[in-house]
Parts: sequence; structure tokens; C-alpha cells
Amino acid sequence: LSHIEEVAQAFRSHQDAITSALEEFQGGEPFDDHAWTRDPLGGGSVRIMERGFTFERAGIATSTVGGTSFPRSGAPDRPELWERPYSAASLSMIFHAVNPYVPSFHANLRYFEVDGGEADWWFGGGMDLTPCYGFEQDARQFHMTLKNLCDRHGPDYYAAWKESCDTYFYLPHRGEMRGIGGIRFPRLGKGEVDWEEGMGLVDDAASTIIPAYRPIADRRRLTRYGPREKRWQQLRRGRYVEFNLVCDKGTQFGLHSGGNIEAILMSLPAAAAWSFDYMPPAGSPEANLSRFLQPRPWAERRAGFLARHLTNRA
Amino acid sequence: LSHIEEVAQAFRSHQDAITSALEEFQGGEPFDDHAWTRDPLGGGSVRIMERGFTFERAGIATSTVGGTSFPRSGAPDRPELWERPYSAASLSMIFHAVNPYVPSFHANLRYFEVDGGEADWWFGGGMDLTPCYGFEQDARQFHMTLKNLCDRHGPDYYAAWKESCDTYFYLPHRGEMRGIGGIRFPRLGKGEVDWEEGMGLVDDAASTIIPAYRPIADRRRLTRYGPREKRWQQLRRGRYVEFNLVCDKGTQFGLHSGGNIEAILMSLPAAAAWSFDYMPPAGSPEANLSRFLQPRPWAERRAGFLARHLTNRA
Repeated sequence: LSHIEEVAQAFRSHQDAITSALEEFQGGEPFDDHAWTRDPLGGGSVRIMERGFTFERAGIATSTVGGTSFPRSGAPDRPELWERPYSAASLSMIFHAVNPYVPSFHANLRYFEVDGGEADWWFGGGMDLTPCYGFEQDARQFHMTLKNLCDRHGPDYYAAWKESCDTYFYLPHRGEMRGIGGIRFPRLGKGEVDWEEGMGLVDDAASTIIPAYRPIADRRRLTRYGPREKRWQQLRRGRYVEFNLVCDKGTQFGLHSGGNIEAILMSLPAAAAWSFDYMPPAGSPEANLSRFLQPRPWAERRAGFLARHLTNRA
Repeated sequence: LSHIEEVAQAFRSHQDAITSALEEFQGGEPFDDHAWTRDPLGGGSVRIMERGFTFERAGIATSTVGGTSFPRSGAPDRPELWERPYSAASLSMIFHAVNPYVPSFHANLRYFEVDGGEADWWFGGGMDLTPCYGFEQDARQFHMTLKNLCDRHGPDYYAAWKESCDTYFYLPHRGEMRGIGGIRFPRLGKGEVDWEEGMGLVDDAASTIIPAYRPIADRRRLTRYGPREKRWQQLRRGRYVEFNLVCDKGTQFGLHSGGNIEAILMSLPAAAAWSFDYMPPAGSPEANLSRFLQPRPWAERRAGFLARHLTNRA
């Protein structure tokens, strides 16, 4: 029995709730709604806010797609799934704020079924944070919220999924982390959990997005900044573009499979900049970012751990 | 007998001459010079100008690299070359102007030798123009200059190399051309031409860069513009980033082979922007660009050809 419609409906409800929460957060400025369909089975909705008071570019998208032939690249080591009918539902979002002190946020939750769930089904996704300036308080709060989420569903999830996130959000051509990570679970499916457990986790994750992000955005969004901070933000957004266009598997898949191009590239920032071999002045908050972004046990509760892990406070 | 040093020396001379010509063009503002080396055999020089009066970002780079094992991806259908020692010299440049009416220019010239030229050698390269606003006069002048260059060396070169350029500088995920093209020759080597003929053509091509670009930049660089034109330029620069990071084979090769990352990404613009599903107003010069960018016989001499090929004049 296929659960695709049930998941898609849950994702649409979360899309509505998250859109409303962000609209309220920025004082009522509304998101635009773009719906799209693609025959025979495919369609979605993109809620988008650009050049707003709080967000330069924020998008919250749902989609349901399917096909008659599951691609080999989707499971290279499982030939029994290749070329079988499949369907997928997803909820994705990206928040790029105006203020350089507010980190960018990204989340994706998805559900796949092959042969209507008979052959296989699985959930996947994650969420992560990309600051331009490092704040211990933000990193700890974000990771603690995600650890609590994970711990409600399984004792080992957070440690494994944090590591998966740190490994994935890395730019090999720069030798740089994208941000402070978060959680990422490529697969939680048939043979590992009951369907209801998987759906419960994904539902809880979607409900955790606003509690994880809003306090941080709220704390930083009125911080004073000038051209220096804005310039630094745009250079860091250049790295974000590099990651999404060069490294991100979802974007690569979308670009080569011919999906809705604007929905696929919704994750790109409003603006980005490049400057040859730019190095911020030694000791500046900008220069300290790369050290801050190294993977760290942000959810450890013990006092004093930061002194052991960070030589410079941001 | 290896010619690598001879070609590298010629490329360095052209780098000097082109740098001087651009410095003079923008009233004496100098380029910075960054030299780099990588053991055992590799190094280069990047001349860079950022935030100048005329250029937001312009770079002119030479490099010489080599290795003990020519990569399969460099010639998938020629196993006799795989894993043999090789060396390569290149001259690349990109000019992104401040003024939205001045097109971006890109050129690359390169020379490969496998087994010191015994197993194979070839030249490759090309140059192309990417305007934000279409002007027939600029497109005709650019292509006529390149046709004259090609015709000095072979009667069939221009037609073949223009087509190769139009095919290559295309964004499949957008269904869009990158610009108005130019010429591109992936290979001109052993068995096709004498070495001196190949070198003569590449030398002539390098000498044609300034005559091909400068009159166009000169004609447009003082055109008045406002926030609307600057915004459009940044959105178009977003497409330039997409092409270079997603489609360009040279960039992909560089990112995955671990070269000098700043030299590889020198081609990215100073700034780029993205906006969801942005459509310029119908009938505006911005809206007319996509029609202007379709491949056209810009070097045809017959009067009236544009009336047949363009329904709207830019």
C-alpha cells in the first residue's frame, strides 16, 4: 500500500506552517506561491520571498515526482530496484537572510517508494546551518535542538547523523567546511524501522525547523552591520554557490534529470561575490570563521568543552 | 623534441602584451601579479584586476603543468596515450567589465604533449563573447575579426569552429546560449597540421584578442546605466557562474584534479545574482537578449541578412 499521498500531504501541511511562521517572523510580509506540474506524474509548489525585510531569498518547496524507471544512480548497488516504477515526495527549504550575522539555513526531507513501497521505501533528509560569523551560542543551541530531536527517536541517531552531515557539507576543492553542519540521514527505511517510526521522525524533524532556526535568527537579525560585513557575506555566499553547483548531489541530480530548474536552483543565494585569493585580516572575526567551522561536539553538555575545542572565541 | 618551453614562452609574452594593453585601456590602473608553483612540474602566473575603473574582475593567466600519467579522461578513445608522461601549457583570460553594456570576454589557448610530443601533441582553444545587451554591430565586428583570423590559416576553420563554440557554450539545464559565441577548436595537432602551422595559428589568435575585444569595450564602456541595467548584469552573471561550475569541462577538470583553485575559478564574475523565475518585461532590451543569443551567421557579409535572422533589433 503506497504511502506517497500521505507523506506528500504531511509535507504540504509543514510547508504551510513554516511559511506562516516566517511571514509572521518578518512582520507579515507574504511569500509568493508558484505551483507547477509536469506530466505524467509530477508537480509541486514553491513559496518564495525575495528582497524582504528579513530575508534576501527564502524558499520553501514541496514536490511529488515519479517515473516508470528508477534510475541506476539512485541505488548503484541494488539492481533489483533499477527500472522499477517509483515515486518520491520532498519538502525542501533555504533561508538566506539580509543581515550577515544571521546564518543561512537549509533543510530537506524526502520519501521514496519503489514499486509502490513493495520493493523498497525509505525516508531521508537533514538540516544544516551556514553562518558567515561564528557564535558559540548559536552553534550549541542549534545542535542541542537537533540532538534532542534525534534522541526522541533513537539513541544513536544524532552522533551518526551529525558525522554524516559534517562529511557531506564539505568543499573538497577548497578544503573548507560549508558551515557548522547539523544532521543528515541518507536513508531510514524498510528493514531498519517501521514505516510509522520513519514518518514520525520526519514529521518531528519538520516541526523542529522553526524552533531550531528562529531563536538564532531572532537574536542576530538586528545586529548592526556595514559594507564590510555585507561584503564578507557575499564572498561566503560565493562558497555556498560553489557547494550547491559543484558538490551537492541533489542539485546535480536535478540539473541532469530535467526537473523544474527554478525549484532546483531555489537554494542559490540572492547575491554572491568572488575575489581572487581573498584573505581576511589575521585575527578578525572573518578570519576566525574557518577555524570555527571545523567539526566540533557542539551538543556536548560539559562546561569548558569550548575552551578545549576553540582556541579563539568568535 | 619537446616544444613545451617554446609555447610557454610565447604564452608569457602574450600575457605581458595583453596585460599592458588592458592597463593602458583603463588609464594606467595596474594588474596585480600572482605567481604560483607546484612540485614537481607545475606553475603559473595570474595577472588580476579587481574593482577597477573599467573592469570589475579581469584575469590573464599562464600555466605550465605536467605529470607522469596522462589521464584517461583526457582522451577516452586513445588508450595508447593513457598513463604516459605529458605536459601542457596554457594562456587563459576573462574580462568582466563594470559597465553592463560591455560584454564579458573569455579566451583560452593551450598546448599538450604526450611523451614529449612523440606520442602526440596538439593545440586547442578559442574565444567567445557574452553580452548582457545585444548589439548587432558588436556581434558582427567580433565574428568578422575571428573569421579573418581563421581564414588566414585555413578556409574551413571558421565555419567549423564557430559551430563548435555555439554547441559548447550552451546551458542545457536552462535551454539557453551563454553568449554570442566565437570560435572553439578542441584539437589541432599531430597528423592534421605541421607544428609550425599550429603554433602560427595560436600565436595569431593570441594577437587577435585585443583587436577583437577592445573596439567593442571602447564603444560601450561609457554608456549610461542605472540600477536596472546593473541588476540585469548580475542576473546574467548568475548564468555565467552556472555555466562555469556546472558545464565547463576545463573548470570541472581543474576542480577534480586539484590545481590552483584561485586560478581555476578566476573565470567567475566579481558578483552574481539569482531571482526566482525572473522574466524581464516583454519587449524590453533585457527580454530581447535570449533571441539575440541564438546562433546566427554574424560574419555573413550580405546586406539585409539581419532582417532575415532577427525579428527584433536590440
